[in-house]
Amino acid sequence: MRELRFDPIRNRWVIISAERSRRPSDYTIGDEDREKEKTPVSCPFCEGSEEKTPPEIFAIRKERVVGSNLGGWRVRVVPNKYPALQIEDAAFRYGMGIFDVVSGAGAHEVIVETPDHGKGLADLEADWIKDVLVAFRERIKDLFCDRRLRYVLIFKNHKSKAGASLMHTHSQLIATPMVPPVVKQELIICRENYRAKERCIICDLITQEIEFKERVVYEADNYLIWTPFASSFPFETWIVPRNHLHDYSMLNDKDLRDLAVVLKLNLISLKRLLNDPPYNFVIHTSPPKFDRPGHPEHWDSIEFDFHWHMEIVPRLTTIAGFEWGAGFFINPTPPEVAARYLREEIGRNFEES
Amino acid sequence: MRELRFDPIRNRWVIISAERSRRPSDYTIGDEDREKEKTPVSCPFCEGSEEKTPPEIFAIRKERVVGSNLGGWRVRVVPNKYPALQIEDAAFRYGMGIFDVVSGAGAHEVIVETPDHGKGLADLEADWIKDVLVAFRERIKDLFCDRRLRYVLIFKNHKSKAGASLMHTHSQLIATPMVPPVVKQELIICRENYRAKERCIICDLITQEIEFKERVVYEADNYLIWTPFASSFPFETWIVPRNHLHDYSMLNDKDLRDLAVVLKLNLISLKRLLNDPPYNFVIHTSPPKFDRPGHPEHWDSIEFDFHWHMEIVPRLTTIAGFEWGAGFFINPTPPEVAARYLREEIGRNFEES
Repeated sequence: MRELRFDPIRNRWVIISAERSRRPSDYTIGDEDREKEKTPVSCPFCEGSEEKTPPEIFAIRKERVVGSNLGGWRVRVVPNKYPALQIEDAAFRYGMGIFDVVSGAGAHEVIVETPDHGKGLADLEADWIKDVLVAFRERIKDLFCDRRLRYVLIFKNHKSKAGASLMHTHSQLIATPMVPPVVKQELIICRENYRAKERCIICDLITQEIEFKERVVYEADNYLIWTPFASSFPFETWIVPRNHLHDYSMLNDKDLRDLAVVLKLNLISLKRLLNDPPYNFVIHTSPPKFDRPGHPEHWDSIEFDFHWHMEIVPRLTTIAGFEWGAGFFINPTPPEVAARYLREEIGRNFEES
Repeated sequence: MRELRFDPIRNRWVIISAERSRRPSDYTIGDEDREKEKTPVSCPFCEGSEEKTPPEIFAIRKERVVGSNLGGWRVRVVPNKYPALQIEDAAFRYGMGIFDVVSGAGAHEVIVETPDHGKGLADLEADWIKDVLVAFRERIKDLFCDRRLRYVLIFKNHKSKAGASLMHTHSQLIATPMVPPVVKQELIICRENYRAKERCIICDLITQEIEFKERVVYEADNYLIWTPFASSFPFETWIVPRNHLHDYSMLNDKDLRDLAVVLKLNLISLKRLLNDPPYNFVIHTSPPKFDRPGHPEHWDSIEFDFHWHMEIVPRLTTIAGFEWGAGFFINPTPPEVAARYLREEIGRNFEES
């Protein structure tokens, strides 16, 4: 059973994913035992173990042999073995008294970033990271051909404290039958601002942050790294393209190569400064389906008013009762302080190289 | 420096609380070292260590000697030594380019639930838990006399995974110069429903859940325990008063004694079923200040349409990149399954007693 249920009091959807419905005893084993349980004798993401994952969806190889399930790959995309949502499920919506349910049609995929078990994403060369970013783009494009799907969220959990269950470096994507609330909020803000001013609010932010300087971590030709003015987490950063573009999947290989360089710089700096911290990143991009007239979530114009970006959050603080019950985050490191440390770290990285 | 900053893209406030502005090295010490660092040689919450906390704000003693900072107390409320917000700060609002800031006037207090270092809240007798609930009520009432404050959130972090930094059992409250977004959302939903139907949506839910049965964990005379239809976390429960009331602080001692019995039953069952799991709870209640005409957040009627309740969430899963970036939670244990286990556990508790 996989379904999205609407919470009528808190006004939000929750994914109930009970394929292997978890009993109390599944939660009460110690962390060490769980780590052991979850770490198979041989890692399913290593080269030579291709048969241990569900069949390959996409791969980048020296020779382009897609779907072969053989070795020789650089980046490999497979379905998640324990998917939160599944592409085979029918998408239908129904009511149950006060309640509303959408069945769990979607997708949950794993992007294995390298066959090398010992490396993290930050350790890969920029060309390799570019291939990972290309895999993101190709999967988004492909999944948006499925008209049941309204969004594809690319995300990464690095280390168990950030939610990773396998240590071999990988990212994930979950495609959902509705636009996720956090993304929808950002889309609405960009839309409203555009309507009021015929300008993009994130473009405005770029101008302002460059002028204010204090939260800018790095300025590349095409990208900017900053710590957001209202960072929810210490050392949170955003990578923002300097040129307005709503849709990540429209980036060409050259754009992605430039992004790879900046992403590597960002991750390496966080790794050195904070002793390889657990972190998450997400890509927020426009849902392409909004472009289609007649689509239920097509509002009234083509969604060019959004400005795609990456959000990277080291997980150094705990989301506790107050954050949960209030919805306010408490950040003990002002973003101006975080930006200063990160700028210094980037300076050191450049001196070394 | 303590202030609330508005995130113009994500449309939410974040508390930047940099009283002891945390540098990278503050985050990179190992968990064990941190635990040691945070556990003082003698616990400041134990009886006889009253001078180790800031001066007492409220206490329940055998003889009612309030503010004495001596021993002999049952429940004791003190300011948090490292407050996220502070009552001494001025409350003013200003803009900074695109950005908006509110200075951090508020309060952050600790409710020490017992002088006994070895006991958890679940282990206390119902009469003692009642005193804790009375302390909550008295602090809410008192703080709402400060017109700068718009809300008081009562919450508890049990164990370090749920955000606790001291092991001696305690709850906390944070008073904020604006209504927290999660609470505001619930207030708006209740309001809209009331306007459309002249009925409370939570009262409707009570009727429906009693009829559906499958998510009801326990029915007391005055309170109901259920697992929410769209539970964000496995084994999440709500304690809901069966009679409509918007404001927790209006409860009398008898009401709180009844609540204490139900809360104890809930906590003991979670403890036994899930091996003393980390958990958070929060109380959601109406912000009394809304009652005042002329108040900036006074909408257009007295806020009797809310229905106060407690939300209790065991922290058995990780809030990872998807939850953060999408705003969707993934719950692997359907609430119907959780309710069944909890009912069985409560049955066992009654057989024993």
